[in-house]
Amino acid sequence: MPDLKTFIDENRGNFVESLKELLRIPSVSTDSRHKEDVKTAADWVAARFKELNFETKVIPTKGHPIVYAESPPVPGKPVALVYGHYDVQPPEPLDLWVTPPFEPTERDGNLVARGATDDKGQMLTHVFGATAWMKSVGELPIQVKFLIEGEEEIGSANLAPFIEENKELLANDVVVISDSSQFAPGQPAITYGLKGIAYFELKLVGPNRDLHSGSFGGSVRNPANALCAMLNTLIDEHGWIHIPGFYDDVKPMSGDERENFAELPFNEEKFKEQLGIDDVHGEEGYTTLERRWARPTLDINGLTSGYQGEGAKTVLPSEASAKFSCRLVPDQCPHKIGKALREHLEKICPTGIKMEFKEHHGSPGFVVATDSPYIKAASDAIEQGFGAAPVLIREGGSIPIVANFAQQLGSDVLLLGWGLDDDNTHSPNEKFNLADFQRGIAASAQLWAELAKIDM
Amino acid sequence: MPDLKTFIDENRGNFVESLKELLRIPSVSTDSRHKEDVKTAADWVAARFKELNFETKVIPTKGHPIVYAESPPVPGKPVALVYGHYDVQPPEPLDLWVTPPFEPTERDGNLVARGATDDKGQMLTHVFGATAWMKSVGELPIQVKFLIEGEEEIGSANLAPFIEENKELLANDVVVISDSSQFAPGQPAITYGLKGIAYFELKLVGPNRDLHSGSFGGSVRNPANALCAMLNTLIDEHGWIHIPGFYDDVKPMSGDERENFAELPFNEEKFKEQLGIDDVHGEEGYTTLERRWARPTLDINGLTSGYQGEGAKTVLPSEASAKFSCRLVPDQCPHKIGKALREHLEKICPTGIKMEFKEHHGSPGFVVATDSPYIKAASDAIEQGFGAAPVLIREGGSIPIVANFAQQLGSDVLLLGWGLDDDNTHSPNEKFNLADFQRGIAASAQLWAELAKIDM
Repeated sequence: MPDLKTFIDENRGNFVESLKELLRIPSVSTDSRHKEDVKTAADWVAARFKELNFETKVIPTKGHPIVYAESPPVPGKPVALVYGHYDVQPPEPLDLWVTPPFEPTERDGNLVARGATDDKGQMLTHVFGATAWMKSVGELPIQVKFLIEGEEEIGSANLAPFIEENKELLANDVVVISDSSQFAPGQPAITYGLKGIAYFELKLVGPNRDLHSGSFGGSVRNPANALCAMLNTLIDEHGWIHIPGFYDDVKPMSGDERENFAELPFNEEKFKEQLGIDDVHGEEGYTTLERRWARPTLDINGLTSGYQGEGAKTVLPSEASAKFSCRLVPDQCPHKIGKALREHLEKICPTGIKMEFKEHHGSPGFVVATDSPYIKAASDAIEQGFGAAPVLIREGGSIPIVANFAQQLGSDVLLLGWGLDDDNTHSPNEKFNLADFQRGIAASAQLWAELAKIDM
Repeated sequence: MPDLKTFIDENRGNFVESLKELLRIPSVSTDSRHKEDVKTAADWVAARFKELNFETKVIPTKGHPIVYAESPPVPGKPVALVYGHYDVQPPEPLDLWVTPPFEPTERDGNLVARGATDDKGQMLTHVFGATAWMKSVGELPIQVKFLIEGEEEIGSANLAPFIEENKELLANDVVVISDSSQFAPGQPAITYGLKGIAYFELKLVGPNRDLHSGSFGGSVRNPANALCAMLNTLIDEHGWIHIPGFYDDVKPMSGDERENFAELPFNEEKFKEQLGIDDVHGEEGYTTLERRWARPTLDINGLTSGYQGEGAKTVLPSEASAKFSCRLVPDQCPHKIGKALREHLEKICPTGIKMEFKEHHGSPGFVVATDSPYIKAASDAIEQGFGAAPVLIREGGSIPIVANFAQQLGSDVLLLGWGLDDDNTHSPNEKFNLADFQRGIAASAQLWAELAKIDM
């Protein structure tokens, strides 16, 4: 479609400026101080759809609003639902950002800002893919529905019930999500599996106030010492996790899948070099890609206790707490694991300590069939948009809501990641390659054409 | 001496106002932002001595200044050297203070402020005890030298060489220090033993940036997981410390001493109740007082890693660090223990992690003879000042410099604590009982008279 291609090429600058506008809104969903900013981001996204005369709604929830929009129905053709999110992770630690997280800056062909790749930039490729059709052709070849939420980074607690209550509105054949990575620069990928997650917080309270470690040391249980001891029971040197029953429901990897992973051009030396580490580490008996994509993990995400300032303070802290999370694979259940973990921690919590255990968001892992017509359509679209055929991969990240689409709407799912592994997702200096942004828009526009070839 | 007593009674209000002045100066020695405040506190203390026409100097060091002053010599009588410090611990966590840490506030007969008891209030009892003699009698019955430093809370690094280089100036028979506690309210004590300290900081660095725990979990060693595992090797559930050779030089407690401790009216139930804990915890085979006063300990003083804000952040942190310290007893050597600890940590530091180990201040433990004429003099002075005879105790806290006085000046040492165990030393809402402040001044004034009875 020449008009389409021309429009996308000619509007490159407009697409980037528009993305920068959205990135300037600090829509940090986990931080209540940013509630208004999150609402502003929702309205900004809704405005893009209204410009295309799509049926558009900003739907309030108990938390942050959901943006929904749809193009006109096209009988006999598949219906696609684009899912994305306009909320972002907190930018901390701020001092490690080269330029401020909410002042998008172009550097070395990348746009640097919190949310650049996760997920504002990737999500907008589909908005602009649809924009290209509407502005150059005047219509879309299939009906595309857009469901853009503001709580992905905190577990999509309000989107799950919304899907349950709006099955007709959201009815679709295939869900399209761009919130993951290519396999490597120049090597696009289709992701057919995601990990789930179970996120926890453990707070230990010892004495009712911070104490002088000299006057009281040796007579009072130190919650920081106790925290290290308790956390240390959860995972061992072999990378094996000791939450009771943790591996019971883990679906083993097939020999074919392990072969496919082994055939991918993964350079472990380059991987270590990029991360500045002298060795990889993880569950014994599996390769690095297998651990990252298809095996469950446990990582401490944060530790805090006592004095953390300059110099030395001889305090016996009153409290110590940790945030930690497990990445899950099919068919592990986050709530079953949370329950087993709570029981384990309560059993080993020592005298002299009061324990507070909190389950944050959780979601199961997910894998889709790799032989569907949708995978074929996406593969062809990506080959045209990126100039290279995609490989099939899995991802260690979690998109909590994906399981709901499959279970409640019976949708197939296409995970088309335009990002790169070194995009600093969830880290300082998050970036998105602007050439990939443009290629993603072209691939998205082409995807609607490829899906239109499928007769229902 | 009626004049002396009258002067002390009549000036009660002036003493309190004067203490408040000093407490308003935030002389936090560990925090470089407070360098000027520390200097201001030194000058304030020097001014008190100049008012008494004592030979007074404010001596600059590589760190914070030392204040030295002395009253005229009295031949044939002992020379006493009062040691104290005008620096204080950091006030954090600020949100737990009922009133601001550097706005001294009277509450329930106490003065509440950072430094109230440790050591500004206790140190000033000796300044005002001397003031009482100078203003009412016109002279002191013995020569009293004052050595008031500004680096006690950070290990007195510059005072040790100063003592070494000024043995003649500082020459004395007995060092008097009030920087500890009474045994209980209404039960004053003389402290004949102190613990030493060895303070450490361990920083573990994994990947060169914070990573997405989904995309990288299972392939990269997590420094927070590693920190818990490494710290957990240092002390076990029995309260036994596993730094190689840690107990080699520990002088066992004598049967007599254990009997004396057992006879003290220590109420463990009340102790637990005051701290809000359901059980005490420490080294197996020893009582709570024995652990607090005469057995070595290991406590984590601070932990920091990853995301510590509100809600959940799925980060695999680049760094994790801990501040921790051992309290030592005679004859453990902090540097020997630091060396053994470093070797142990280097041995167990896992692949994928770079370790940075730092030794902060260290000092040995200390015990003095309990049958000296100085203990007798102090006991009589305290009985008159407090209206109750003191008991002999040890303390878990450390006054790093005490060992130097004994070793380099051959001084005997009197540790006369006017504080209480629940003074919140090093904690929010630090306090000093104003009646004890007044009793301490009376006891100090009387001490010079009692020491004058000793002919040299």
